[in-house]
Amino acid sequence: MKRLIFLSSLSILLFSCAQKQERTINSDVLSSEEIIDSTNIKTLFNSALTDGKSYEWLRDLTQNIGQRLSGSEGAAKSVIWGEKIMREVGLDSVWLQPVMVPHWVRGEKEIATYTLNGMQKNVPICALGFSIATPESGILAEVIEVKSLEEAKALGNKMEGKIVFFNRPFDDTLINTSSAYGGCVDQRVNGAAVCGEFGAKGVIVRSMTNSIDDFPHTGTMSYGDLPIEKYIPTAAISSKAANILSKDLKENPSLQFYFKQSCETLPDAPSFNVVGEIKGIETPENFVVVGGHLDSWDLGEGAHDDGTGIVQSLEVAYLFKKNNIKPKNTLRIVFFMNEENGTRGAKEYAALSKMNKENHIAGLESDFGGHTPRGFSIDGNTVNTQLLQSWKKLLSPYGLHDLDKGGSGADISPLKEENVTLVGYKPDSQRYFDYHHTSNDTFDKVNKRELELGSASMASIIYLMDKYLYSNTALKP
Amino acid sequence: MKRLIFLSSLSILLFSCAQKQERTINSDVLSSEEIIDSTNIKTLFNSALTDGKSYEWLRDLTQNIGQRLSGSEGAAKSVIWGEKIMREVGLDSVWLQPVMVPHWVRGEKEIATYTLNGMQKNVPICALGFSIATPESGILAEVIEVKSLEEAKALGNKMEGKIVFFNRPFDDTLINTSSAYGGCVDQRVNGAAVCGEFGAKGVIVRSMTNSIDDFPHTGTMSYGDLPIEKYIPTAAISSKAANILSKDLKENPSLQFYFKQSCETLPDAPSFNVVGEIKGIETPENFVVVGGHLDSWDLGEGAHDDGTGIVQSLEVAYLFKKNNIKPKNTLRIVFFMNEENGTRGAKEYAALSKMNKENHIAGLESDFGGHTPRGFSIDGNTVNTQLLQSWKKLLSPYGLHDLDKGGSGADISPLKEENVTLVGYKPDSQRYFDYHHTSNDTFDKVNKRELELGSASMASIIYLMDKYLYSNTALKP
Ligand SMILES: [Zn+2]
Ligand SMILES: [Zn+2]
Repeated sequence: MKRLIFLSSLSILLFSCAQKQERTINSDVLSSEEIIDSTNIKTLFNSALTDGKSYEWLRDLTQNIGQRLSGSEGAAKSVIWGEKIMREVGLDSVWLQPVMVPHWVRGEKEIATYTLNGMQKNVPICALGFSIATPESGILAEVIEVKSLEEAKALGNKMEGKIVFFNRPFDDTLINTSSAYGGCVDQRVNGAAVCGEFGAKGVIVRSMTNSIDDFPHTGTMSYGDLPIEKYIPTAAISSKAANILSKDLKENPSLQFYFKQSCETLPDAPSFNVVGEIKGIETPENFVVVGGHLDSWDLGEGAHDDGTGIVQSLEVAYLFKKNNIKPKNTLRIVFFMNEENGTRGAKEYAALSKMNKENHIAGLESDFGGHTPRGFSIDGNTVNTQLLQSWKKLLSPYGLHDLDKGGSGADISPLKEENVTLVGYKPDSQRYFDYHHTSNDTFDKVNKRELELGSASMASIIYLMDKYLYSNTALKP
Repeated sequence: MKRLIFLSSLSILLFSCAQKQERTINSDVLSSEEIIDSTNIKTLFNSALTDGKSYEWLRDLTQNIGQRLSGSEGAAKSVIWGEKIMREVGLDSVWLQPVMVPHWVRGEKEIATYTLNGMQKNVPICALGFSIATPESGILAEVIEVKSLEEAKALGNKMEGKIVFFNRPFDDTLINTSSAYGGCVDQRVNGAAVCGEFGAKGVIVRSMTNSIDDFPHTGTMSYGDLPIEKYIPTAAISSKAANILSKDLKENPSLQFYFKQSCETLPDAPSFNVVGEIKGIETPENFVVVGGHLDSWDLGEGAHDDGTGIVQSLEVAYLFKKNNIKPKNTLRIVFFMNEENGTRGAKEYAALSKMNKENHIAGLESDFGGHTPRGFSIDGNTVNTQLLQSWKKLLSPYGLHDLDKGGSGADISPLKEENVTLVGYKPDSQRYFDYHHTSNDTFDKVNKRELELGSASMASIIYLMDKYLYSNTALKP
């Protein structure tokens, strides 16, 4: 038993070491102003982690409303929900910005199948957003596998009457999975436009993910300049099915692939951005905006994409109010509509902002899921970028080490001007494309603490930008 | 449609930005030796992410063997599995180190219940490791809730015949969850010893987790110096049940809580550490050791605790061999037995190492789960610690920013000496205590890429320690 006591003490000792290690900033190296900032940031984190609302808001949005594709009933419900929840937080004003949005509908569940050696294989597929339907009887054709748009173009008329299968996988060696996505998504977006030109019958695309599983990933596509009579239907197939099909095509290059989908694009539908604000106490005519997108794809619940961005954005305002932090500039929260297939909300917000001569000095977007915080990507001029990077010592105790230059996000980037500092929230990217645009993007995939740490991270950089971009008059537009 | 093309291009543009951003080291700022190191580290990561074996090994260990509590059939199977898998990797030699381990068994599934306002509530509980059983009829008694060992001691004889309920929750404001664990685990380890002294009938302890859910978390406890006749049974109850019980006790302070468990400690059982090595090509008499623990608790599959540490440790050797990186010192891989309730394997390894005058220069342990990499905690002398911290620029492109001083791990810490550098692998901690010591610690909770990034992170720091701790002769013991 003595031995046991010793062991237990040892374990506790190890954990006590860990405890002492909890990273706090050495106040010796901070200026008095930085000590205030450090204290306020700690307050924001404590508050988010012990009294945050984002997780319960997300549960409500994803489980009681669910999918919110532009033009859908879910999207309409989410607008009402968004306005209600902003009012509950007690913002100074809340309103809706009307915007017409694309209205594409999936129709019946898609079917895909082929037979090899007498065995029928069912393929998990989903139509891509804006794709046309197949004829009601579906499409049956031979398959040509390619790895790139260039390879497809080089086929030319050889693809006539065939289904072209884009199968370039994610580059798994890229550490940030969004880099891998960026390296593959041209197949999904432009595959049908390229192959429609040469008379292909349809296009199927490997799902955009690192994961090898059974989930097809939807997402937007475009027929580009193609004349409407050359439009061909296009769908994503799961990564696992893509691997199997590729193998099977080596065994039987002339196998007949069948798929059927009944999606269609209806006339544009009315919808709204949901906007709320806390008036600035010093220069209310300047705006700091934070947002995510309220719409989602129609598979899953739009949890990581982008329910988390929505609730984190509102939590920034909640944390400010709860802790009596009054922004110098007006803090605007925007739930953008239609990021997924049109970014109409983003363009409307930017257009209205321009029309009303609103002076946006900074923007922050959260649209990379709700995983554990890693940092922010900064899209600003050199001086402002360096200013933000100088906050590293305040942010790194919370795991926010990445403060590199980079894009912000699709919804705030229309606000870009020389002196506007735009920032994208960067959570860890490893799991994001396990869920992105699939039926697997559900509430249970979001971790409460990771979500709350994200809210607090966002509130912290908004606090700093509001304070310092404002006071640095030389940088004001 | 034009508009759509524009939008699609915009999205792609944003992602291309992200792609360009993939962090590579600016080779201008690196010495020629560092460029070699940077290249080798990139090779290790590429290899782990495209050809890693750790995920399939983990599937095999967790799903085909499952729980591996010391002395159990699962533990015995895992030893055979460990030896086999080490041989498959082609280590220069593989052997077993016999060690006697504690053999505690849970027995039948525990039962706990109480009645409030005529409604019976079933409480998810599990016995704590080394606890004695209740009488066969169970224990029925009033409950006294306390928040600390001190508060319990202050009760003195007032707890006679009662069940003491330790209910101090994790401090959610601590960013690293292991700090919160360190701040609570004394209740689990020492609660029964303290309360047995004063004649309590039993002890129940709030589960060690940030999460509010239905999983009871087991873990080791100790009766310390208590005479055996004063031993009392102790169990963990789920965090959600703890919250409800606390509320219900306010409504009815004299409610009768019932629990029943049939666990027992059998005589020590024979078991083994599994050890393998790649001979060093320059100083094979020096050892660099990397390991995790092969045993697990008996609930769940021991996936994050510590199946991931096991497969990542072996993957270090696999990545070295596959990429023809030959260690200067002998690289030793150890699957330690009995970390969870005794650390007998760790002590045996250290004792044999001392007896055989093996000169360990460095050790690395992975026992904090398989989540996305954050860094390493360093337990070494000042010179070596600074040397390790100087590798930050080589490691940070992979998300490895945390290189603070701190404890390494329970299995390698017995090797500690002034000139031995011990390192703990630090994955992200947010989700770890969602699974730790519960039936929820299963294979599906592990993300393939996160696991592989961890293997590569570990291989990278082993590569650097092997190369530089060796060549820095001034630091050699
Ligand atoms: Zn999104
Ligand atoms: Zn462990």
